[in-house]
Amino acid sequence: MTNELIQNLSVDCVVFGFDTNTKTLNVLLIKRYLEDEKTNQPLVDDYVLTGYHVYQNESLDDSATRVLKELTGLTGQYKKQFKAFGDPNRLKNEKDLIWVENQRFNVRTITIAYYFLLKTEDVDVSNNTYQAKWHPINQLPKIGFDHKQIILEAYEDLKTKCLSEPIIFELLPDKFTINDVQDLYESILNIEIDNRNFRRKVINKKYIIPLDEKQVGVSKRPAQLYMFSKDIYQKIYQKSYLINI
Amino acid sequence: MTNELIQNLSVDCVVFGFDTNTKTLNVLLIKRYLEDEKTNQPLVDDYVLTGYHVYQNESLDDSATRVLKELTGLTGQYKKQFKAFGDPNRLKNEKDLIWVENQRFNVRTITIAYYFLLKTEDVDVSNNTYQAKWHPINQLPKIGFDHKQIILEAYEDLKTKCLSEPIIFELLPDKFTINDVQDLYESILNIEIDNRNFRRKVINKKYIIPLDEKQVGVSKRPAQLYMFSKDIYQKIYQKSYLINI
Repeated sequence: MTNELIQNLSVDCVVFGFDTNTKTLNVLLIKRYLEDEKTNQPLVDDYVLTGYHVYQNESLDDSATRVLKELTGLTGQYKKQFKAFGDPNRLKNEKDLIWVENQRFNVRTITIAYYFLLKTEDVDVSNNTYQAKWHPINQLPKIGFDHKQIILEAYEDLKTKCLSEPIIFELLPDKFTINDVQDLYESILNIEIDNRNFRRKVINKKYIIPLDEKQVGVSKRPAQLYMFSKDIYQKIYQKSYLINI
Repeated sequence: MTNELIQNLSVDCVVFGFDTNTKTLNVLLIKRYLEDEKTNQPLVDDYVLTGYHVYQNESLDDSATRVLKELTGLTGQYKKQFKAFGDPNRLKNEKDLIWVENQRFNVRTITIAYYFLLKTEDVDVSNNTYQAKWHPINQLPKIGFDHKQIILEAYEDLKTKCLSEPIIFELLPDKFTINDVQDLYESILNIEIDNRNFRRKVINKKYIIPLDEKQVGVSKRPAQLYMFSKDIYQKIYQKSYLINI
């Protein structure tokens, strides 16, 4: 029985946001900062994911929802539990031990990692107690704990999932252009997509609905706006399987 | 701090096995049995997944590998951590409470669920201390704890994954016929596949290698045998993305 593991449980949230202006996929990170009391030199100065302990009477999903709400004020965003991280040494590098000692956490903590998909514009980063900031996925700063690994595994999961499920529409505004869809795929997958084929393929989907509206406030010729219909998608794909290995 | 959750952590393993003779996808379950000491009437009599507590110095993956090895003697099988289950009430139905009391477990246990893919013939079920038995996924017996939910979520994950990744070959013998592949897909997805199209599509894959061998010991005309080359698959698919939403 002494060998049995009883420990802390937390959730950590990888919050992905797409910025349609800069065409970049971003991650929301919070600052981790600690000074030496005598010298005022920084002992810990990096970024981490937002996360928290799971409460006694709370499900894992509710816990993740609570953490996102506390950070961003948002609820009802697309959420996916993608992996549990429980390596015995996951929080044991030098900076983490300084931080952990200071915060009086238990050392072995298992974390259940979630990712959320939203639009960067939905979060007011100028006004939050956590100093949360968006960072492009391809230019991540120095990151504490094992959170870089967690981010990269979330990103891999997102890449795989966006090929076979229409989750990318969670990252787009309700009304979007076909170019926005292409920009988003190119940004997530880090590839260039043949414009003409892609356009035809997307427009032909029954769940991509053309609106009686065009872009406003653009310098070039305004493009047609579309919306994604989840209802239609689910009706079409409920019982169809396309084997594509 | 009193609100903070400190509890047991376990792994549970959904062991999927395909039986090429009966063409069924199976799950390996162990018996849970407890009698009333006075009346000898069964108090608990159902099946559960194999699982165990995670040890102090053990990663989650190592823990799942250990559990599978103890049950089946097998190592090196395809393994996937697919979800953590942590509902506060997950082990609180009547039979579970009788069982838990008897076994002196803590009541709230978070479990990290894995699934394994193997061939039913690889496990000697006639000779194991756990009374483990294969059960067809479509004819599951009475199942304890929240393990039915865990099995069904593992099955959903397997269904989705087998459409976009060649994991089904983990369920087949090293040498197989194209019919075996079709039977397996039909069994997992619970569909009928058009024979001719499927045959052509599979044979055209560069990573499906025809062997200089045919079936032996069959009553009808022996079919050509094939193997799956993971090396070739990885070389081809490493840098290609097919958007298929």
